[in-house]
Amino acid sequence: MSWNTFGRIFRFTTWGESHGPAIGAVVDGCPPGLTLAEEDIQPFLDARKPGQNKFTTQRNEPDAVRILSGVFEGRTTGTSIGLLIENTDQRSKDYSEIAKSYRPGHADYAYDAKYGLRDYRGGGRSSARETAMRVAAGAVARQVIPEVSILAYVAEIGGDAIDPGNFDADEIARNPFWCPDAAAAKRWEALVDEARKAGSSLGAVVECVATGVPAGWGAPIYAKLDADLAAGMMSINAVKGVEIGDGFGAARLTGEQNADAMSPGEDGPEFAANHAGGIAGGISTGQPVTCRVAFKPTSSILTPVDSITRDGEATQVRTKGRHDPCVGIRGTPVVEAMMALVLADHKLLHRAQCG
Amino acid sequence: MSWNTFGRIFRFTTWGESHGPAIGAVVDGCPPGLTLAEEDIQPFLDARKPGQNKFTTQRNEPDAVRILSGVFEGRTTGTSIGLLIENTDQRSKDYSEIAKSYRPGHADYAYDAKYGLRDYRGGGRSSARETAMRVAAGAVARQVIPEVSILAYVAEIGGDAIDPGNFDADEIARNPFWCPDAAAAKRWEALVDEARKAGSSLGAVVECVATGVPAGWGAPIYAKLDADLAAGMMSINAVKGVEIGDGFGAARLTGEQNADAMSPGEDGPEFAANHAGGIAGGISTGQPVTCRVAFKPTSSILTPVDSITRDGEATQVRTKGRHDPCVGIRGTPVVEAMMALVLADHKLLHRAQCG
Amino acid sequence: MSWNTFGRIFRFTTWGESHGPAIGAVVDGCPPGLTLAEEDIQPFLDARKPGQNKFTTQRNEPDAVRILSGVFEGRTTGTSIGLLIENTDQRSKDYSEIAKSYRPGHADYAYDAKYGLRDYRGGGRSSARETAMRVAAGAVARQVIPEVSILAYVAEIGGDAIDPGNFDADEIARNPFWCPDAAAAKRWEALVDEARKAGSSLGAVVECVATGVPAGWGAPIYAKLDADLAAGMMSINAVKGVEIGDGFGAARLTGEQNADAMSPGEDGPEFAANHAGGIAGGISTGQPVTCRVAFKPTSSILTPVDSITRDGEATQVRTKGRHDPCVGIRGTPVVEAMMALVLADHKLLHRAQCG
Amino acid sequence: MSWNTFGRIFRFTTWGESHGPAIGAVVDGCPPGLTLAEEDIQPFLDARKPGQNKFTTQRNEPDAVRILSGVFEGRTTGTSIGLLIENTDQRSKDYSEIAKSYRPGHADYAYDAKYGLRDYRGGGRSSARETAMRVAAGAVARQVIPEVSILAYVAEIGGDAIDPGNFDADEIARNPFWCPDAAAAKRWEALVDEARKAGSSLGAVVECVATGVPAGWGAPIYAKLDADLAAGMMSINAVKGVEIGDGFGAARLTGEQNADAMSPGEDGPEFAANHAGGIAGGISTGQPVTCRVAFKPTSSILTPVDSITRDGEATQVRTKGRHDPCVGIRGTPVVEAMMALVLADHKLLHRAQCG
Repeated sequence: MSWNTFGRIFRFTTWGESHGPAIGAVVDGCPPGLTLAEEDIQPFLDARKPGQNKFTTQRNEPDAVRILSGVFEGRTTGTSIGLLIENTDQRSKDYSEIAKSYRPGHADYAYDAKYGLRDYRGGGRSSARETAMRVAAGAVARQVIPEVSILAYVAEIGGDAIDPGNFDADEIARNPFWCPDAAAAKRWEALVDEARKAGSSLGAVVECVATGVPAGWGAPIYAKLDADLAAGMMSINAVKGVEIGDGFGAARLTGEQNADAMSPGEDGPEFAANHAGGIAGGISTGQPVTCRVAFKPTSSILTPVDSITRDGEATQVRTKGRHDPCVGIRGTPVVEAMMALVLADHKLLHRAQCG
Repeated sequence: MSWNTFGRIFRFTTWGESHGPAIGAVVDGCPPGLTLAEEDIQPFLDARKPGQNKFTTQRNEPDAVRILSGVFEGRTTGTSIGLLIENTDQRSKDYSEIAKSYRPGHADYAYDAKYGLRDYRGGGRSSARETAMRVAAGAVARQVIPEVSILAYVAEIGGDAIDPGNFDADEIARNPFWCPDAAAAKRWEALVDEARKAGSSLGAVVECVATGVPAGWGAPIYAKLDADLAAGMMSINAVKGVEIGDGFGAARLTGEQNADAMSPGEDGPEFAANHAGGIAGGISTGQPVTCRVAFKPTSSILTPVDSITRDGEATQVRTKGRHDPCVGIRGTPVVEAMMALVLADHKLLHRAQCG
Repeated sequence: MSWNTFGRIFRFTTWGESHGPAIGAVVDGCPPGLTLAEEDIQPFLDARKPGQNKFTTQRNEPDAVRILSGVFEGRTTGTSIGLLIENTDQRSKDYSEIAKSYRPGHADYAYDAKYGLRDYRGGGRSSARETAMRVAAGAVARQVIPEVSILAYVAEIGGDAIDPGNFDADEIARNPFWCPDAAAAKRWEALVDEARKAGSSLGAVVECVATGVPAGWGAPIYAKLDADLAAGMMSINAVKGVEIGDGFGAARLTGEQNADAMSPGEDGPEFAANHAGGIAGGISTGQPVTCRVAFKPTSSILTPVDSITRDGEATQVRTKGRHDPCVGIRGTPVVEAMMALVLADHKLLHRAQCG
Repeated sequence: MSWNTFGRIFRFTTWGESHGPAIGAVVDGCPPGLTLAEEDIQPFLDARKPGQNKFTTQRNEPDAVRILSGVFEGRTTGTSIGLLIENTDQRSKDYSEIAKSYRPGHADYAYDAKYGLRDYRGGGRSSARETAMRVAAGAVARQVIPEVSILAYVAEIGGDAIDPGNFDADEIARNPFWCPDAAAAKRWEALVDEARKAGSSLGAVVECVATGVPAGWGAPIYAKLDADLAAGMMSINAVKGVEIGDGFGAARLTGEQNADAMSPGEDGPEFAANHAGGIAGGISTGQPVTCRVAFKPTSSILTPVDSITRDGEATQVRTKGRHDPCVGIRGTPVVEAMMALVLADHKLLHRAQCG
C-alpha cells in the first residue's frame, strides 16, 4: 500500500498519465492456473469507458487492454501480469492556462507543493484515468475469488436517493447511472442533464455489496478487512467518505438496535440483520460485505472560481472542455474493482496464515 | 499495514491480549535525537484510561507505560522503541459462558471462524485494550511532528450533535465526553447515564482536526493521506465510517458549493473554505486536515440477544459486567493518536522522496 | 524486511539494547493452533547462551524467555506473539572510554555518523545480543515447518576446516564448537584457546543444511528463497559472506561439472548431485537447502588499534573485558534460526499464492 | 522485496517473459525533478545487450527502452515511471523438447513444482532476459545518487583470476569481458572461446565497488546495507555467492589482521584498510562499498545430461542453440545496476529517518 502499489499478496502497481502514450498495471502474486484472457478484462473496462452517453465525459477512448506477460496458453503462470492500455484521445490542445493556474478542488496545487513540478496535461497522474487500470486489475482479481459476487450501484445523486423499496438489480445495467431504482434513474436523467448543461456538477453515493465472502477473511489489527476497504475506496479519485454496513447511521443507533442477532443455520450462523456490513473485528462473518462510498461533485465546472497562478497571483479558473458532470457514475465500476482487489488479497492472506 | 503493524517509515507493531500479563508496542523508524521519556507518553494514556468516571468502563488500570529500548539519555536513538504496559486488573472471573457462546456484534464468531480457536478472556486480542498501545505509539509520533497540533472531540452521541456555534476548544477537557459544546455535554450527561443504567449503549461521532500540516504530505496513488487516515481510523475498534472534510455531505453539494476557492496569501494560498478537509489528490494542501469517525454503540448490552454457542446451538447472550456505555468517548484519544501516527509516517515518507 | 522487522507473512520484529532492561520480539503472522510454550523456545536459547565455557564470552545471562501474548491454553491463536527476555548481567562499568572513542571494526562510528548519537553501553543495539531474539523467533518458526530439519555446524575456524570424511552429526553437540569432526574439534580447542589467551580472535565458516523442504518454496524474482537466505544470513552480526550450494566454488566449475543430473524417483526427481544447494530459479527443488556463512573474527581484541575519538582526535582502542574469541561459534544457533525463519515465511508465502 | 518488486522507498517492479511481446518495469518512489530521458538509460542497456560478440549469446535484441510515464519535459515528476522494451527476436522455434523435459540446472522443474505450469519458451520468466529491466531501473537509480560512482568488473573466469597488480580501470571497457587486467583478458579470450566451441560453459566472479557513498546509509537490523546487497545480488540469475569486503577471506583472518584502523582525516576518519567493504553494523562508513558475486557456469551445455520428462520418465537433455558460454560476463552490468538500486533506496531511506 505505497505509492502506486496496492495489496499485500495479490497486489497491483499502476503507472501512466492522462495524456501520456499509455497507462498500465502490473498484477503480482496472482495464483497460477487461473483462466485469463483479454476478454475477461475488457467488459469491465467497457463499463467504465468514457464517452458512452451524454452523462459522462466525451473523451473517446477504446480502452483496449493488452496482456503482455504472466499468462501462457490462456492461464496465469503465477508470474507478474503486465497490462497496458494505449491512450488514443489525448486531444492536442492548449494547456497554457492550466499550466499556469491551479484548478480549485483539483490536485494541481498539492502536486506542485509536493513535487515542485507537475504534468499538467489533463491532470497528469492525478487524473481519474488511472482508475482504468484498477478496473483492469480488478478483473484479474475476480478470477481469484469466483465464490464472490460483487455488485455496485449508485444510491444517490445530488442528494436524491433511491427508494430501497424499488431496488431491482436487473435495472442497474439498463440505465446510464448504474441505478437500481427505475424511478430514481428517470429523475436523475433530468438532474444530471441540467447540471451538465449548466456546466455544473453533482456528487453521488455508491453502494457495493459482495456476497459469497466466507467467514474468516480479514486480519486484525492493522489489516482489517474494513480498514483495507476504507483505504481502497478512499484512494479512488473524488471519494471523501466510506462507510461499512450502517456506517454513520450506526452511530445513531442503540446497542439493541444495532445488534445482529445470530441463530443456528445450516452452514454457520444465520444473522437477523447486517448492521455490521459483514465484518466484525476486522474479519468477515459470512454475511454480505457492504460499503458505501461518497463521491464529491466533479471539481471541473464552468463557473469561474477564484484561484491563484503558479506565481502566486490572483486569477479565476473556469474549466472548459470535456468532463463528467457526476464522477460518481463512472466511479461505480471502480468501486467494484477495489472491492474485488481487497477481497482477492485477503483470500490469499487468509490462506497464507490459516491454510 | 499488515497484521499487527501500521505505517511505512514511522511504524509500530502491537501485541497483547486484554487479560494477558501485558500489552506492548514496538515503534520503528523513529528519527533519532528526539526527546522522549515516559512522561511524554503517560498523559495521553491517562486521557484514555478506563475507570475515570461513571461514563466509562470501571476496569481499573493504571496503564503505566515503560520505555524498554530505543531511548538513551532522554533522546531517541533511531532504533526500535519497545513500550510495555502491564495488565493489572484482569479480574479473575468465570469465562465459561463467553467461552462457549458468541457475543453478537463482537468479534467472537469471526475469530473462531478464522483461527479455529480464540482467547476469549475479555475479548482477547479483539478487545479495545489494544488501543492503549496506539495511544502510546501516537505520543511518540507527536514528537516527530512538533509543527502539527491535533485536536479530537466528540461531535455527536446517540444522534445528539453539538451546535458548531457553541464550539469552545477549552471546554473539551472540562467534561467527561471530550465535548466542545457545554450545552451538549450537559445533555449527554443525562443521555449516557440513562443508557448506562439501562445496560444499553450509544454510538458517537468523533471529529479530528490537525492544524499545521504543511502542503505536500501524502503520496498518490495508494498511499494517499486520506486513504491512510481512512485505514487508520477504520482499524479502531467499533468504527464503521470515516469522512474526510465534508465527507458524505460533499456528495450532496454541487461543484460550485463544494469549491474551495483560493486567493494569494502570505505563505501559500489562502482558501475560502475547506470542504476538502485539507487534502487534494491525496496530498495535504496546507489547510487543516479534518476527518470524522463514526463509532457504533458498544455491542455489550444487558438486554439478551439471540446468539449461538460454539457447538451451533441456539442461546441468548447478555453481557454482564464492566463496559463503556459509549465507546466513542474513550475512542477520542485513539482517533488523535491515529491522526498523529499517519501524519508522522507521511512526514517521513515525504522527506524520503522529496528531501 | 525493514528496520527491525524480517519476513513477509511470518515475520518478527525485535527491540532492545545490550545493556537495557530487556530485549524482545514480536512474532506476527504465525498460523493458529500450533503448540507453543516457553519450553519449546528455551532449548534453542540455551544453545546460544553466553558464558557456557571458556570459548565464549563470560557474560552470564540466563536468557529465560517469556511468552506474553499470542498463545492461549498452549496453542498459538494467530495473533501477535510477544516474547521478552530480561537482561540481568548488564555489568555496571565505566563506559567513558567507549563513549568517547570508536572501536575499530565495530558499528560505533557508523551509528554515530547515521544517528548523531548512540547507546554505547555494550554496543547498544548493534550488539549481537539482539540475536537472542532471532533464536527465540526461530524456535517459533520451527513449529510452522515440522516437515523440515535444520542442522548448522561450524565447518572452519581460523582457516582450519573440517574433513568432510569425518562428518558425524552426532559429534556436533558433543563439543563446544558445534563441530561435526571430532579431530577438528580437538585442534580448534587449542586454536581458540590460544586466541583467547592472546586477546586475539578468529573467524569461522558455518554451514547449514535444511532437509525436508518440499519443491516449490521461494518466489521469483525478488523474493527468491536464496535471496532471502542471503539477506537473512548477512544481517547476522559479523557475517561477511553467504554461499548457496557450491557458492564461489561453482564459479570455478564447468557447466558439466556443475550439472545436477536428474533421474526418475519415487517422489519427484532424484538428483545425482546438489551443487545448486536445493534451489533453482529461486525456488526449492526438494533437495536439501544448503548454505555457508562467513563470520569475520571478533573485532574486540586486546591489541591496541589506531582509532579516533568522537571529537576527531587520534587515539588507540584496546578492548578489555568479556568477549567471544570466535563469534562464529555462538553464531551457529543464529544461522539455524534464520534458516527456520526464512523457510517458515516461504512456506506461508507459497501457500498464499499456490494454495 | 517480494515477488517482482525490489526496494522500499525507491523501488521497481518488473514483468515480462523471455519470449513474450515485451518486458517492462515500473520504478516507484523516485524523487521529482531529476533529469531523465531514454538516452540516460540506453547506454547501460547497450552494455548488457546480447549478441555483441562471440563470447555472448547470439540473440539479437536492440533493447530499445521507452519511458511511458513519470517524466515530463525531461524531468521526473515523482510519479511511477513506466519502462518498456519490446522483444523482437523471440525466434520462432520448436519448443516441444523443452516443453516436455526439464533442463538440469535451470528453473524448469522448480517452476513446474511450484506453479503446476510454466511458460517454457526460452525459460519464460526465469530467463535472464528479466535482468534487462534491472539495468534500466538501475539507470534511473543512478540519477538519484550522483554522488556515487559504481564500477563492476569480472575478476575471475573459470577459476582464472585477475592479478590485482595489473588492475587498470580504463582497460575494463576495452575488452569483451569487463576485465581490468589486460593479460587476463587475453587468457580469457582463449578460455571462453574454447568453452564456447565445446558447447561447455564457465563460471565467473564479478567485483563491484561503489565510491562516494557517505557514512550513514543502511538501516539496522533487517535492512542492513549489506543484507540488502546480498539479497539484490543473490536474486540475479546464476548467482550462488555474495561477499562484502573480504567476505570468506575475513573468516581466515585474525582480529588484528582484519582490523580497519582509523585515523583523523579532513572529512571524517581515514581508514588504513577496508576489510569491511565499507559497511559496519549494516551502515556505510564512508569507505568504498565493495562486494564480490559468484556466477555459476551457464547451465545450458551441449553435453547431454540425465534428466526427466514432465511425466517423470528418464531422458537426456542437451541444450542446442544460442547461449552465453559465461553468464557472468553479461551479469556485470546487472551487478552494477543492483548496486545502484540498493544504494538509491538506502539514500532515500536514510533521508526519511534522519533528515
